[in-house]
Amino acid sequence: MLDKVYTAQGSPNIALVKYWGKRNERLILPQNSSISLTLSSDILNTTTSAMLSKKIKKDMFYLDGKLQNLEDKEIRERFGMVDSMRDLAKVKENILIVSKNNFPAGSGMASSASGIATLAYVLNGALGLDLNPRDLSIIARQGSGSACRSIFGGLVVWHRGSRADGKDSYAEQEFDESYWPDLIDNIVVVSQEKKKVSSRAGMRQTVETNPLFRQRPPIAEGRVEELIYAYRQRNFDSMAELIMADSNEMHALMLSTRPSIRYLNNNSFKIMDAIENLNEEAGGNVAAYTFDAGPNANIITLSKYKDQVFKALKPLQDSKDILYIKTSGVGEGPRMLDDSDSLIEQSRLSPK
Amino acid sequence: MLDKVYTAQGSPNIALVKYWGKRNERLILPQNSSISLTLSSDILNTTTSAMLSKKIKKDMFYLDGKLQNLEDKEIRERFGMVDSMRDLAKVKENILIVSKNNFPAGSGMASSASGIATLAYVLNGALGLDLNPRDLSIIARQGSGSACRSIFGGLVVWHRGSRADGKDSYAEQEFDESYWPDLIDNIVVVSQEKKKVSSRAGMRQTVETNPLFRQRPPIAEGRVEELIYAYRQRNFDSMAELIMADSNEMHALMLSTRPSIRYLNNNSFKIMDAIENLNEEAGGNVAAYTFDAGPNANIITLSKYKDQVFKALKPLQDSKDILYIKTSGVGEGPRMLDDSDSLIEQSRLSPK
Repeated sequence: MLDKVYTAQGSPNIALVKYWGKRNERLILPQNSSISLTLSSDILNTTTSAMLSKKIKKDMFYLDGKLQNLEDKEIRERFGMVDSMRDLAKVKENILIVSKNNFPAGSGMASSASGIATLAYVLNGALGLDLNPRDLSIIARQGSGSACRSIFGGLVVWHRGSRADGKDSYAEQEFDESYWPDLIDNIVVVSQEKKKVSSRAGMRQTVETNPLFRQRPPIAEGRVEELIYAYRQRNFDSMAELIMADSNEMHALMLSTRPSIRYLNNNSFKIMDAIENLNEEAGGNVAAYTFDAGPNANIITLSKYKDQVFKALKPLQDSKDILYIKTSGVGEGPRMLDDSDSLIEQSRLSPK
Repeated sequence: MLDKVYTAQGSPNIALVKYWGKRNERLILPQNSSISLTLSSDILNTTTSAMLSKKIKKDMFYLDGKLQNLEDKEIRERFGMVDSMRDLAKVKENILIVSKNNFPAGSGMASSASGIATLAYVLNGALGLDLNPRDLSIIARQGSGSACRSIFGGLVVWHRGSRADGKDSYAEQEFDESYWPDLIDNIVVVSQEKKKVSSRAGMRQTVETNPLFRQRPPIAEGRVEELIYAYRQRNFDSMAELIMADSNEMHALMLSTRPSIRYLNNNSFKIMDAIENLNEEAGGNVAAYTFDAGPNANIITLSKYKDQVFKALKPLQDSKDILYIKTSGVGEGPRMLDDSDSLIEQSRLSPK
């Protein structure tokens, strides 16, 4: 009989109040709480299959079709999560993991959040750990900070916590994906290039060199609370203001870091202009831009404003400043898939 | 006999630690001390002639050939300095002022600093006030904050001060123009457009809406001290680091203001990239960029590095991203000109 393959699918999240700066590098403990929307896996997703087997000679990890070198320091660091989950499960077998994203990695589209959350989720099944989502979010956090938020669907807070061991720095769902069904995110792609400075290195530079950063943690804590309040009332105008303020604040902290970190490009600025003009003409916020560590925009809006937003962005599509736009609803978080969706060819112990 | 015409010439200054944010709007008292280099009037200058006369029916002010409407609120506000200086001199005659800049106004090239400093300077003569430069800087400050620094040549500090009446918020020369003769400023013009948001309005927005701004005043005070220390030792590498950090910090505070203020454009970012790459290749800072409230760059460097800087900027000149570059040494501050340089046609009581 063949060993069992577990397969799960998860999705990226888009932070509305950003995580930028650690207070503990090893445990990945943040300087401030953050909050995000988990996107629908219908649009952007990571699918990951995992199989434990005595027949596997050594751990193997395929990402987007390529066998990863587990001797590589950076990959090993992330794979550390696999080791610690296996230790926790008191399992000794080697493991085969096959993962693929349906969107490009490293371009500021939160591929690591989606990938790590899905991996933690599938291993929870494969290793028979049966951890609750909160504990799973703590494990995912140690793989890649913002991944902990992708363990849940809907609007998700990652609590900063205050303990040195990180046990109180976990993710929590504030509202599920059905609370505000009109809310959508338009992922506006202007560049597919890999970013020059990794988020990890950039954050460290910011915390170490930027004297303005001292103000950031208390501001962000307050903004998370305000955002939850606006969300509860489904007050889009207020929420949009908080989202744009936070995105600009994070990029301002990057700009004022030494050496300066600049992820936004001219196309990003054109999108900001277009959305600000749209909001001004509308006499209130009908859309909010937010940018992670890259030049691609996420435009949060409501279904009823979608046509207006697309009209405002049309000139930038015509001029090819915008490559393409993908529209996503709010998603439900990771889930197990059927065997028919497995990425592993069991008989050959390799990717399908 | 004709009434006497006084004519003076002054120049802009380029701030190395920026002034951005007032603690008193009416008296123009800053949130932090700032420091600048006064540029040579050989390159950028304002020439202003002033004449008091009983024959003049009402005050008249010509700027760059155009008679200004003194009923206009904004112009009146700036012209307020003329009224207060006339009151101080206990003079009752009307006044004719003719002023011209040899560079475009309102494009972030500090035309108001140059204009107001030169006006204060020429009126000090025309009204027979004979104020010392420090008191004159206090008067210029009330016309346009950073103008107070253009009352002196060389490296000039504008002290924040702490008094409510502003008597201790004056400019002071730290080093004269001959202290570091190799120092040059390359004014890199990428746009001649007038800026969308005035500095005055932008500053107010920042102080009122930007929670990061709270950190700015103590950071800037420390940076002014560090910059004077580096300047004293003619340590270009250190000074350049402080200059770039401060420029980025100011623009970061603008970006994170609500609504967001963005003066830099893609060409500005290309110049930043070019200078950062140049410094990296050189293994130390051989040039520093700094941007005021506009997209045009000032590249501070030493004469011996000028060729390297121009080589680094050449691709941007070839692609027309850079319109032109003007190179200026450090200047000596305002001075009186001969009658032959007068801008006033005395017999006709009008500009020449």
